[in-house]
Amino acid sequence: METKSKKLSLEPYKGTRDFYPENQFVQNYIFGVWRKVAESYGYLEYGASILEETELYRAKSGEEIVNEQTYSFTDRGGRDVTIRPEMTPTVARMVAQKRRELSFPLRWYSIPNLFRYERPQRGRLREHWQLNCDIFGVDSIEADVEVISLAYDMMKAFGAKDENFQIKINSRKFLNYLADDYLQISEEQKHKTFKLIDRMNKISVEEFEIQGIEILNEKFDKLKKVISSKDPSDIAGDNNTTTGVSDILNLITSLKRKGIVNVVFDPTIMRGFDYYTGTVFEMYDTNPKNPRALFGGGRYDDLVGIFGVEKVSGIGFGWGDVTTRDFLETYNLLPQYHPPVQLYIAHLEGFMEEANKLADYLRKQGANVEVDLTDRQVSKQIKTSDKEKIPFALVVGEDEVKTGKFKVKNLAQSTETETTRDGIAAILK
Amino acid sequence: METKSKKLSLEPYKGTRDFYPENQFVQNYIFGVWRKVAESYGYLEYGASILEETELYRAKSGEEIVNEQTYSFTDRGGRDVTIRPEMTPTVARMVAQKRRELSFPLRWYSIPNLFRYERPQRGRLREHWQLNCDIFGVDSIEADVEVISLAYDMMKAFGAKDENFQIKINSRKFLNYLADDYLQISEEQKHKTFKLIDRMNKISVEEFEIQGIEILNEKFDKLKKVISSKDPSDIAGDNNTTTGVSDILNLITSLKRKGIVNVVFDPTIMRGFDYYTGTVFEMYDTNPKNPRALFGGGRYDDLVGIFGVEKVSGIGFGWGDVTTRDFLETYNLLPQYHPPVQLYIAHLEGFMEEANKLADYLRKQGANVEVDLTDRQVSKQIKTSDKEKIPFALVVGEDEVKTGKFKVKNLAQSTETETTRDGIAAILK
Repeated sequence: METKSKKLSLEPYKGTRDFYPENQFVQNYIFGVWRKVAESYGYLEYGASILEETELYRAKSGEEIVNEQTYSFTDRGGRDVTIRPEMTPTVARMVAQKRRELSFPLRWYSIPNLFRYERPQRGRLREHWQLNCDIFGVDSIEADVEVISLAYDMMKAFGAKDENFQIKINSRKFLNYLADDYLQISEEQKHKTFKLIDRMNKISVEEFEIQGIEILNEKFDKLKKVISSKDPSDIAGDNNTTTGVSDILNLITSLKRKGIVNVVFDPTIMRGFDYYTGTVFEMYDTNPKNPRALFGGGRYDDLVGIFGVEKVSGIGFGWGDVTTRDFLETYNLLPQYHPPVQLYIAHLEGFMEEANKLADYLRKQGANVEVDLTDRQVSKQIKTSDKEKIPFALVVGEDEVKTGKFKVKNLAQSTETETTRDGIAAILK
Repeated sequence: METKSKKLSLEPYKGTRDFYPENQFVQNYIFGVWRKVAESYGYLEYGASILEETELYRAKSGEEIVNEQTYSFTDRGGRDVTIRPEMTPTVARMVAQKRRELSFPLRWYSIPNLFRYERPQRGRLREHWQLNCDIFGVDSIEADVEVISLAYDMMKAFGAKDENFQIKINSRKFLNYLADDYLQISEEQKHKTFKLIDRMNKISVEEFEIQGIEILNEKFDKLKKVISSKDPSDIAGDNNTTTGVSDILNLITSLKRKGIVNVVFDPTIMRGFDYYTGTVFEMYDTNPKNPRALFGGGRYDDLVGIFGVEKVSGIGFGWGDVTTRDFLETYNLLPQYHPPVQLYIAHLEGFMEEANKLADYLRKQGANVEVDLTDRQVSKQIKTSDKEKIPFALVVGEDEVKTGKFKVKNLAQSTETETTRDGIAAILK
């Protein structure tokens, strides 16, 4: 119990955040918008533990993520465990487990916190929260249209305008066609090429050039032609149906027909995870100051099957809180802070018990009421309520108890109303 | 990317839970009650990361907890980190960090998930969620009265009756008096005696007897007299003020005056953590089938000071979800599951786009609407909505699009109403 030896750190663990109430308020606002729109589409909330056996990620998240980026350790019982770096393997596991009881199609959402071991930087922390929305059991493009429409509606619910963001669409099928048929490169070249494209916005143009030539030699020019393409038909010619091109074109057409106009084909959208099988997409702020994707996702029709059960197709997206905060700040879309407390009750000496009685009465009427628990001067008590941005305040003393009338101060408007306790309850409603 | 070698587990990590939607619904219900009552008292929500540097817990949670019960490991950068086993050290750290900007008294709450490495058993898992409510900056008993009143009001909000539970109160000051003055035992004996009392409900009477005599010899009889006491004055005689006895008696009297009658003195309430300095309390189900505390807490006036800053007094409690679920199930207090979705839209062949248009319209009116994304028979589509317990359903086909009238089925009551899309919106409100 001797603890004075070393001074304890006041900081949160590196790459994580403390959420003081004003900050938690923003977090709750973001979660609230996500939740409301997800539920308006019929998505049901689920949850799971932040710890999973490491094996789950080795299978499909990609070796690099597990080996270099996760928090993995061995528990006291010798099990290899990982603090989840993403939610999709967990939800696939849960669907696989109860596939016989669940009624498909399934629409699910969750807002888990996730951990990645990496150098903290703008838009990227070691811990972040991420909305996950997924549909299971729909093979057709309607599910692709819906999840993107859902994310789009969320952007609108945040107050974003069409010109503030852009949804970029690609397909793993098209990427496979690109490597196997169009470029005709080896598996190793393909792997390296995809990694390079995935990193291209994080490295310089020169670096991209050097590495591209190293991997592809003379075929690098062909790749560059693809990358600058605005229409997948340019590349695939007549092979539309077999190459994922028709999927991309149908998806974009369907979205535009629904009024979602800020959607484009982008052959450089890769998504890091190994499990994607079809459509992949990402959404970007059009402001170059915020160069990271806000949300991204895709189709993973084989993921449930890796648990050794019959296949269930899936499509979904993840949407992080960190880039979202940056976005909302950039466009001045964050709401002003206000506490849930509506009324602060101060009291003269000897009247704390009466103040508490009044508070209890008002709480029973559904009001949120705070009582000062100190014996400070009334002016200091009221100052606290002002500092906490509580809209109403009153003082309990001898007169108030005798007459049953209280002077309710509206602190923002500097007005005062004298009323009974039922009158106060009415004001707070 | 070859992954078929070993079959992946479908189970969550040992001692943790998957929350399928019906289970998440219960979780959200419990969190919702906690949140509502906490905010009615003016508590503000805060949050923090689940990872903290291990040092934080070494200081005051108690060595046993850190060494035997936490998930601790070294990160890739060589830092010792721990998945939080409790929230109090984190909140004390946060208060210490911003003590100059914060306005005291402070009322805060949070609902973090916590990890303990232990053998999973009824009422006790490796991961659980825990409501934490704390007041900082009030030295007087009014804060003790408030936090217990708050927890009591939460029990009432869950629908519990006074006879279903009991709040047991003790004080660390009284326990210190007991060891140092009444029993006059050494520090080592004191430590062992407190540990033994803390464990007494988990071991047999015989075992308690054997270990008690081993530690205290002839003084064990004196201890037993204390343990069976119903009134701390019996033990302390005239030493009421200096021994924490008056604190206990005042607290119980104040609570009873507020109508909280199911509160008793219990000299065996210890609380495991080293940081408590005054009042300690726990609440128990009166049903012996649920023998674990639902909530517990106490005063920790020195905890903020261990960060090397000026002292700030604190008192609060933690309340776990696992025992709470057991309690609510035992007394049949859990609400019936219902999804947030209000209306399921099925459609005849070729009318999915029209179904989606109707859904979008209704969502803009604030309704929660799900569209079937398959081309199954209508009867199968409707079956899904029934299985998902969605209250209303309708079918979109040629007639509906032509006339603009839809037949809204109330599935529970087997009734049908024909109406326009605005009529549907009105029904769903």
